[in-house]
Amino acid sequence: MTVTSSATRIKTDRSRTDLCSAIEDELGGLMSGRALAAAPYGPRFARLWAIAGENVLGGKFVRPLLLMEMYDALQEPRMRPDHHPDRQTAISIAAAVELLHYAFLLHDDVIDGDLVRRGRPNLIGSLLTEAGLPHADSQPGELAILHWARTGGILMGDLLLAATHQAFARANLPHPLRLRLLDLLEHTINETVAGEQLDVGLGDGVIAPELETILLMCGYKTATYTFELPLRAAAALAGAEPSMESVLATAGRHLGLAFQLQDDFLSTFGDPRQHGKDPFSDLREGKQTAIIAYARMTSAWPAIEPWFGRSELSGPQAEHVRRQLSDCGAEAFVQGLIQEQLADFHEILRRHAANIPEAARNVLIDLAAQLEGRQS
Amino acid sequence: MTVTSSATRIKTDRSRTDLCSAIEDELGGLMSGRALAAAPYGPRFARLWAIAGENVLGGKFVRPLLLMEMYDALQEPRMRPDHHPDRQTAISIAAAVELLHYAFLLHDDVIDGDLVRRGRPNLIGSLLTEAGLPHADSQPGELAILHWARTGGILMGDLLLAATHQAFARANLPHPLRLRLLDLLEHTINETVAGEQLDVGLGDGVIAPELETILLMCGYKTATYTFELPLRAAAALAGAEPSMESVLATAGRHLGLAFQLQDDFLSTFGDPRQHGKDPFSDLREGKQTAIIAYARMTSAWPAIEPWFGRSELSGPQAEHVRRQLSDCGAEAFVQGLIQEQLADFHEILRRHAANIPEAARNVLIDLAAQLEGRQS
Repeated sequence: MTVTSSATRIKTDRSRTDLCSAIEDELGGLMSGRALAAAPYGPRFARLWAIAGENVLGGKFVRPLLLMEMYDALQEPRMRPDHHPDRQTAISIAAAVELLHYAFLLHDDVIDGDLVRRGRPNLIGSLLTEAGLPHADSQPGELAILHWARTGGILMGDLLLAATHQAFARANLPHPLRLRLLDLLEHTINETVAGEQLDVGLGDGVIAPELETILLMCGYKTATYTFELPLRAAAALAGAEPSMESVLATAGRHLGLAFQLQDDFLSTFGDPRQHGKDPFSDLREGKQTAIIAYARMTSAWPAIEPWFGRSELSGPQAEHVRRQLSDCGAEAFVQGLIQEQLADFHEILRRHAANIPEAARNVLIDLAAQLEGRQS
Repeated sequence: MTVTSSATRIKTDRSRTDLCSAIEDELGGLMSGRALAAAPYGPRFARLWAIAGENVLGGKFVRPLLLMEMYDALQEPRMRPDHHPDRQTAISIAAAVELLHYAFLLHDDVIDGDLVRRGRPNLIGSLLTEAGLPHADSQPGELAILHWARTGGILMGDLLLAATHQAFARANLPHPLRLRLLDLLEHTINETVAGEQLDVGLGDGVIAPELETILLMCGYKTATYTFELPLRAAAALAGAEPSMESVLATAGRHLGLAFQLQDDFLSTFGDPRQHGKDPFSDLREGKQTAIIAYARMTSAWPAIEPWFGRSELSGPQAEHVRRQLSDCGAEAFVQGLIQEQLADFHEILRRHAANIPEAARNVLIDLAAQLEGRQS
């Protein structure tokens, strides 16, 4: 999912730059410390950490920024001032949330066989290039190098998953609060993995592509760790009541699902001049989305099905399928789903208006505004 | 690596059975609790936990038994009695060490493409069978089912790696002791992953198969988490001084390396009627062992090389290669390496005789005796 971190207010721009630096410092220190500790195990192992460090630091920090913005927002007016751990601990948890994101991306790339992310080689792609360089110890075959590179993706994912847990387990917090965050981490990982399994099962044809399953998958796979986790961690770290954490979780879930649905929507119906992606890749890959699940229930499906998931689909053919998806009502249906999630989100804000501090409310509204104005 | 947990003394037999039950109870509770929590995410996700639970409980508990035996041994005579956490916490860490072992096995199986372990389908093999059953939602192709099953292996490995960390992070211990155990876990995972990467790099021909590299790999990949981790965790949990932890770590490293070298030795030169494995699989797979690294440095290598790593090697051909490996001195060389490690181990015991409690010494000597009398 793409979530831009562009600010809508000048005040936020300034504090976001500061936050970015703080998160970058924390992540940079962590990754370079690990790369140093890895050096005695040889250049190949150290290289894993070095590549991962470059990639992690090249991220947009969407999740840690959301965590810290909500954390800061919940400090003014302080709700339970005696209960707040120091801000540096929040930064370390925010950084750990980014490590978790990168660990998920790595294993996702292994599972999907992807070698590229955001137009650049991912860790697997980098290892692939380097293994075959003239300074390599020997000249292994293409399949062996691919195996070596994908293994690097699995192993680095494991190391970052471990590093995420280490950061949570070592957080300088009262033990009950540490346990609350560990519960949240456990819940998040369980749900995200359940979502990834659903996604892969849908793609492999092991799980039936029903609309309900696809919507559950979108929520589990992305909304949970991208929206709920940062918001709930912020609430816990700021010493907010569990009821506040629960409101933020629900709001985050609606926004997260809206973002994911919009992602799929823009991939198919958006303007490629705006989002810059291949406008037909979802159709060519046969990705099971809410759009497709709806179309499957209409009389238009028999005409669409033969074209769906065909990698050799030409531009005009794909254009034709897209028009059919629009004509059968799938486009409007998914737009409706997004609007429903946004309406539920605003309803939550309205219902709990008295309990949500204004600054916290603004963080959420900014997020929703990004979504509403989004073209890519 | 195969490490039998057969007891050499009747007294030990009895207490080992009790220990086994305690570890089994802990693991059983943990895995069934997780399977229950997984149920709301659908039958496929719950099934992952159920299969993993069966497999984990079917293990021999070599590592948790070693941990608990050393933990108990260090209690009498008590070294710092005020400092001991309760025994149930030690059981929970011992169980977590078994989860870590299983997480490593799962990702190892994904990396190696294995579908079987100890003659039975592993988790991937089980998923493979079940995905194609008539009650499946559809009839996906063979490649899609394999992808689904291997993804299950990656995801379940992630979940168990997370569960391992959760157990360490939640251990009912004073925080400084918890941090000491978290340091140990971090070190263990780093080193084991470095070893796995070396192993894969050697197999893929990306890393040159030098003897020194192969010996490092054996130590990192297996000795660290199979011997050092349980022994060091026992020392920490029993409140032993860091110096005692360090002696146990060194002793464990020598024993672990000896076990791994013996494993490779028996695979090639052992009596298949004793170890029950295909006696030539290492040769057919082209496994880079200390035996091969030595042979490569002798004048016999040009005659061996054409046969090495050829999957179609016949029995008589493999028998011939094995004789060449013996004649060139590789058999005696590796036997010598094993004896060296054992001698170093005994020297450690002798040098620290005054500081190692007798019961702890007996645990280590039992372990070495298993190795010395081992035929399989």
